Amino acid sequence: MDICRVAILGCGTVGGGVARIMQDLKQDLSMRAGMPVDLIKIVDLNPAESANRHGINRDLFCGTADTITPEEASSFISEIIHDKDIDVVVETIGGTSDFLLDIVKKLIAAGKHVVTANKALLALYNSDIFTTAEASGVQIGYEAAVCGAIPIIKTIQESYSGDKIQSISGIFNGTSNYILSKMKEEGLTFDDALAIAQEKGYAEQDPTYDINGYDAGHKLLLLIKLAFGLDLAFEDIAISGIEDITDDDLDAAQELDSTIKLICYAEKRGEKVFATVRPMMVKNSNFLSQISGATNAVRLINMYAGEQILIGKGAGSLETASSIVADIVFLARNQGNNFHTGDSAGVSLMENDEFELPYNITFDLDDVPGMTGLVATAIGNQGINIDTVGHNRHNIDRAVFPVATMPCSMNQIRAAIDDIEKKRPGVYLNPPKVVPILF
Amino acid sequence: MDICRVAILGCGTVGGGVARIMQDLKQDLSMRAGMPVDLIKIVDLNPAESANRHGINRDLFCGTADTITPEEASSFISEIIHDKDIDVVVETIGGTSDFLLDIVKKLIAAGKHVVTANKALLALYNSDIFTTAEASGVQIGYEAAVCGAIPIIKTIQESYSGDKIQSISGIFNGTSNYILSKMKEEGLTFDDALAIAQEKGYAEQDPTYDINGYDAGHKLLLLIKLAFGLDLAFEDIAISGIEDITDDDLDAAQELDSTIKLICYAEKRGEKVFATVRPMMVKNSNFLSQISGATNAVRLINMYAGEQILIGKGAGSLETASSIVADIVFLARNQGNNFHTGDSAGVSLMENDEFELPYNITFDLDDVPGMTGLVATAIGNQGINIDTVGHNRHNIDRAVFPVATMPCSMNQIRAAIDDIEKKRPGVYLNPPKVVPILF
Repeated sequence: MDICRVAILGCGTVGGGVARIMQDLKQDLSMRAGMPVDLIKIVDLNPAESANRHGINRDLFCGTADTITPEEASSFISEIIHDKDIDVVVETIGGTSDFLLDIVKKLIAAGKHVVTANKALLALYNSDIFTTAEASGVQIGYEAAVCGAIPIIKTIQESYSGDKIQSISGIFNGTSNYILSKMKEEGLTFDDALAIAQEKGYAEQDPTYDINGYDAGHKLLLLIKLAFGLDLAFEDIAISGIEDITDDDLDAAQELDSTIKLICYAEKRGEKVFATVRPMMVKNSNFLSQISGATNAVRLINMYAGEQILIGKGAGSLETASSIVADIVFLARNQGNNFHTGDSAGVSLMENDEFELPYNITFDLDDVPGMTGLVATAIGNQGINIDTVGHNRHNIDRAVFPVATMPCSMNQIRAAIDDIEKKRPGVYLNPPKVVPILF
Repeated sequence: MDICRVAILGCGTVGGGVARIMQDLKQDLSMRAGMPVDLIKIVDLNPAESANRHGINRDLFCGTADTITPEEASSFISEIIHDKDIDVVVETIGGTSDFLLDIVKKLIAAGKHVVTANKALLALYNSDIFTTAEASGVQIGYEAAVCGAIPIIKTIQESYSGDKIQSISGIFNGTSNYILSKMKEEGLTFDDALAIAQEKGYAEQDPTYDINGYDAGHKLLLLIKLAFGLDLAFEDIAISGIEDITDDDLDAAQELDSTIKLICYAEKRGEKVFATVRPMMVKNSNFLSQISGATNAVRLINMYAGEQILIGKGAGSLETASSIVADIVFLARNQGNNFHTGDSAGVSLMENDEFELPYNITFDLDDVPGMTGLVATAIGNQGINIDTVGHNRHNIDRAVFPVATMPCSMNQIRAAIDDIEKKRPGVYLNPPKVVPILF
């Protein structure tokens, strides 16, 4: 290509931002790409409103009426698929429908590069989409799909290509981080913090996927593929969300000089990859503990370059759009071959409960003498070293105290917990709460 | 190119790391580059020792004896310059000699891509080198020259290309940051902290350029060219180092909920760029205040993507080498055209003393009534708004107190300082110390 001609499908929050930036920075983008970068067509169901809302030239929209029907939209999309002049298509329709998957596959088959922020679609159909792209000699730009404005995709592809990534951890969901920050800083309950997040626009009306860790999991899946070459099915990743975090958990974390965060974590040891999304107690000496509000952060440990941290906005119209436009410029300027992770044959997922991490276990027991000894002995019997036994909050007739372990597996911890129950049936007033500790 | 053949000139700390990584990750690198990446020649004065120290195949070195003479080295380098099979040359000789500049220019003229960590050479001869490269259709890989392992060059070139950078700030020199961290955390004097830094290998025996801000200035110059398209002569940048920082300054910073850091700062306002390297009081809410030890960090404010922070190792053999190898892979994989900053015509440097920043001024005066009023009135008379007047450390017969201003220029501050002296000659027991505050 010597002119980069772009079409946008879906001109809502993010697509509108893309059109806006392409219009405002047209000269800069062309200079950086080394060729003209032209936005030539937009398909949206509400051309008039979208053009007006985002300040975009109305003539770029397909259709002359104020609104177009889904059938008309389909027909315009079909024209774009068959338009030999279009090189890059931005997919900002969203969702994971068969309809959308079909469009994306047809675009790829027609030789168009596709740029998208759609993490869910890529996570669900990733080998399908990436394999087809490889075969058609086109590229999928998805910088915007993982942590919005943080350039983690290109950083892994282009900047850490002289290294081996050993672990990835991070805060990949701004909504849940906002809620946890509010709970900690203002002493709010989960429900109250969620209500404020919704009021301020940091959480959707249906925040399920933000809260339960699925959105973060989609992003982690894409990074695992990129960094370790491992194709996972979404259900392979052990995911738990922040719904059950209470102020007791936040207090226990504080006692350990830590902060509770919803952490995406993947580590490669030998040919095995451990992957999880779950609340962890992040030590305050780890930068991730300092990330508050709707901000995202990614921390990588590289074999040669050591620790690297990237912090930025994880969502937002123009923030996400900025990443999409950077992908377009990159495609035009470099026209490189597809990225391949080296040496990934034989890599497989590790059984989650075998991976060793330091854990915090908060016990809630009858407040009678001998409890600490019973617990500590059972834990020691499983070959687990104890790091600290925290302050025992004796209140009325219960003993609540945290035990921080040295690295061990969930299998060992479960065995210890079962052993305590066996030795003293009914001892648990509440099931012990187990949270990994991240240094 | 369909095989990427590489030569390394100078196989010391960094060059040895490059050879080591290229040897250890050969398969991965070739996969990522989409073609074989072969290290085929190394020139070093001490082949035997270098091969041994870095664990590199001895056969790669030019010359069969244990050491070679400078004349032999020159002749081997000349062969490499004329070797049509070599595509990329890694320059890790170091220094800014005419001899080295001549080699680099000849390599470029011969159509070889050059990859280097040599920030001083690039900063001193930047338009010369980059213009020649442009004319010869080759690229200069210099990711390693700015903040070692932090991928700030490619991030600006490839990831923020859908945006406009508004400001760059950061900690670009690990040695001075290590010294300031030690002074703060352990209450050491500058001299004692420097001695420890030298003992632990964080500072050279001659640490002049680390301490006086020149090393950081070289890096800032390169980023200003990249982000704002402005070619500066090194002496254009207002630079001061950390030599005069005392524990009083650290205390004053703490009082303002800040930490003293050697900050590189560049901001574009309209068509004017403000640039400086100097100690600043960084508010503790700014991530840069949290960067301790020999770590580097870069903070960018983008027009659309907002705040972005990258943190990582700024130096070290393998850390720096990792960035050099990434540049090699990038050159091979993408073979793109040269990067051009958009829309930089007409951009020029701003008169330093006109730029408005919030400042802290620490006064050291006779401890007699009326001093605070005298100072505050003189400052107000220059149209400067005062944010806070800090705790007055009355000790024996002197009054020492900080005044934090709202944004104003150094010209305004100087006028206020002169006015106070005029109103009450001899009032300054020591000249007022003026430090910008970074939010």
